[in-house]
Amino acid sequence: MSTTVSPTIVHAGEGIRQVVRDAQRDGRRVGVVPTMGALHQGHLSLVDAAHQQCDVVIVTVFVNPTQFAPHEDYERYPRDLDSDAAKLSQHGCDYVFAPAVEEMYPQGFETSINVGSVALPYEGERRPTHFSGVATVVLKLLTLVPANAAFFGQKDYQQTLVVGQMIRDLNVPTKLVVCPTVRESDGLAMSSRNAYLDDDQRRRATALHASMQLARQMVDHGERQVATLQQAIESLLAEVGGIDLDYIAFVRAGTVEPVESIRGPTVVLMAARVGQTRLIDNMQIG
Amino acid sequence: MSTTVSPTIVHAGEGIRQVVRDAQRDGRRVGVVPTMGALHQGHLSLVDAAHQQCDVVIVTVFVNPTQFAPHEDYERYPRDLDSDAAKLSQHGCDYVFAPAVEEMYPQGFETSINVGSVALPYEGERRPTHFSGVATVVLKLLTLVPANAAFFGQKDYQQTLVVGQMIRDLNVPTKLVVCPTVRESDGLAMSSRNAYLDDDQRRRATALHASMQLARQMVDHGERQVATLQQAIESLLAEVGGIDLDYIAFVRAGTVEPVESIRGPTVVLMAARVGQTRLIDNMQIG
Repeated sequence: MSTTVSPTIVHAGEGIRQVVRDAQRDGRRVGVVPTMGALHQGHLSLVDAAHQQCDVVIVTVFVNPTQFAPHEDYERYPRDLDSDAAKLSQHGCDYVFAPAVEEMYPQGFETSINVGSVALPYEGERRPTHFSGVATVVLKLLTLVPANAAFFGQKDYQQTLVVGQMIRDLNVPTKLVVCPTVRESDGLAMSSRNAYLDDDQRRRATALHASMQLARQMVDHGERQVATLQQAIESLLAEVGGIDLDYIAFVRAGTVEPVESIRGPTVVLMAARVGQTRLIDNMQIG
Repeated sequence: MSTTVSPTIVHAGEGIRQVVRDAQRDGRRVGVVPTMGALHQGHLSLVDAAHQQCDVVIVTVFVNPTQFAPHEDYERYPRDLDSDAAKLSQHGCDYVFAPAVEEMYPQGFETSINVGSVALPYEGERRPTHFSGVATVVLKLLTLVPANAAFFGQKDYQQTLVVGQMIRDLNVPTKLVVCPTVRESDGLAMSSRNAYLDDDQRRRATALHASMQLARQMVDHGERQVATLQQAIESLLAEVGGIDLDYIAFVRAGTVEPVESIRGPTVVLMAARVGQTRLIDNMQIG
């Protein structure tokens, strides 16, 4: 927590770019936290990290239509810029960049970015246009806000790989900083979509984290077979019930390469529907 | 012509980026001329334009593998960095950025950019991966060399539209400057690939320009029907012989939209093989 100062809200791309340039000309380090708003403690922890590592902190708030498929929740995704700005006022955020859709995607916009294999499995398979939308909007945000560092949450594991691949391949001069997932006291990963859950669903949803914890404990006690771990996760979720598992994957940490046994840093990824709400989570095990 | 100073050759991306940043921090305007080397008077006219409009001029020399198809002339494309640097020494070029292929495309590189409809017809139809390769490498060059302005030749008409779309859509803070095609005294558009032509082919190749000149004169004298103009061009080329026409297109200037009659600024585009050498050219008519 730092001093309480309301961030300055900027809507124009050229305006925020000038803010960054002026700061950097004065030798100040700029950090950016790209968000879709509906800010929660997870976002605020990213802002805190940016505030620790940088002199000027910019939070972008933009519900990006191109990363939603037509049947997804773009229209009903929660939007409340005033509330977001108020939440940011105690976290050292200097500017909120909140462009209009027409600013980001004016008539005639047609460009898209594909980052290749890291975007293909898991979320990419279920949401085929999602990561191209993410890579494209993040590049646009980083050309408008050419910060020294950009802060993303570990909860969106595959997204951090997609953004990292894009930054590396396109020589974007912004350092990617990935921060730990922030969880509710019962383990549920913070997500703007948790607001869609009713009380019963909310209780069942904690099983995602609990099942990964179980897998981690099994690894800590010597289990190495992914098949055994996966079975334990599936059993726990089935026991809780009301959870429609989409996928569980065990991958070499920092990649999307599946592993069959735990021989080094490994991440377990999962996606599931609880009611109509699709949740994702991940945890490093081994 | 300005003073004779050999440009400084820089191979590392971070090195050239620092050059640009230092210059801009001092309030100096930076111009970049992206090339594949094998420099001719067309390139040098772009360097002259950059020198007139900017304080620091950087020429990039990089034969970009991703814009060649496997059967094309990537391997035999002429490369002579010393000769290129010598040619630049009388044109106010301060730096040559000549990255290695491994610098631009390190192991694991997978990202590509697509700019949509402007890249689809004409060259895009004949060379399906070409403009994605162009858009991707130009973006990479402009993130490594974040110049105030980038200079491209009108000869590659569709390329200028692709680069313009990419710059606009991705908010790249570099102004695109398109400079007129430079021609040999007999009208042949300057091209590094002209060096592939033997004497007989070289003479026949002038018919490309002559046929577009003819179309322009017909328009100046009141002709409005594209079909008539196209027939005149084809007749002239057939008469000269040895020219394997790939396409002729009449488009609204600044677009790839075909027109059927001349009602405003119109560009005629053509591609043809003379022997094994593929040549493109264009001219504004009407």
